Amino acid sequence: MFNLEKLVAEMRETIPLTRSMALEGLRYDGNELILTVPLAPNVNDKGCAFGGSLACLATVTGWGLLRLALAEQGHAADLYIQDQQTRFLAPAWGRLYARCHWTSSEKATFLSAYAARGKARAAVHVACTSDDLEVCTMEARYAALTPGSNRPASQPAE
Amino acid sequence: MFNLEKLVAEMRETIPLTRSMALEGLRYDGNELILTVPLAPNVNDKGCAFGGSLACLATVTGWGLLRLALAEQGHAADLYIQDQQTRFLAPAWGRLYARCHWTSSEKATFLSAYAARGKARAAVHVACTSDDLEVCTMEARYAALTPGSNRPASQPAE
Repeated sequence: MFNLEKLVAEMRETIPLTRSMALEGLRYDGNELILTVPLAPNVNDKGCAFGGSLACLATVTGWGLLRLALAEQGHAADLYIQDQQTRFLAPAWGRLYARCHWTSSEKATFLSAYAARGKARAAVHVACTSDDLEVCTMEARYAALTPGSNRPASQPAE
Repeated sequence: MFNLEKLVAEMRETIPLTRSMALEGLRYDGNELILTVPLAPNVNDKGCAFGGSLACLATVTGWGLLRLALAEQGHAADLYIQDQQTRFLAPAWGRLYARCHWTSSEKATFLSAYAARGKARAAVHVACTSDDLEVCTMEARYAALTPGSNRPASQPAE
């Protein structure tokens, strides 16, 4: 079964930057995913969290929620982020946590669209906290496509 | 003199993720900054560029343009990203380039605001390309503050 542990292992194997960030999984219950990274590898020149690290963490948390949902239905879709709006609310001085949640109804709508058409879109909200303070929010849209459908002809489909 | 070479060296020293991304400087002429990263450390599960890497690259390119402008005037401001809107237009299968440009008038307005008040904001546009294709755009706002003014009392100001 594809679960939180396998999701994070897959990310760390296939997305080198998530290894550099020391990405860890904290919780997944079917509707909510929480991923976390320590501050040290994600610090900036001021000693607080690098905005790019927060954006990356939020990006993979939204992505991971959709990846887990698709995997639960046996779908190995190619998942792409389409756009994101990120707000940095306060400097983060400790470990970073990103939480992405959707309702069972939002999840069902996304999965039934993918099952019917081999492609689907979802909009998600990710909230990042540090020391119990909300430090960053991200609204993002992702597209799930049939594997290989968005790759150039010259690119070997894996 | 603080120049492109020193900017990139400073980023790689103080923001570990930029080292992981293998960030390099390509060009700075006073109004335009181009930074670049190779694909390999910035790849995703599909073999193209990780959206988070593109967001990071765009973030530091906008940041770098403002950092260079402030340094030219002898200002060592704390520069924070406030928000960003990023659009991922196409998968990127090669080296990534991010370009941020502003007019001399935009630059002068930002610098005179900072000189007058010890704080200033700027909105920038960053375009990322790969294989001559525009793959990502980012609109972002940054704030320049007097060094140390946004740090918690418990945090040692460097």
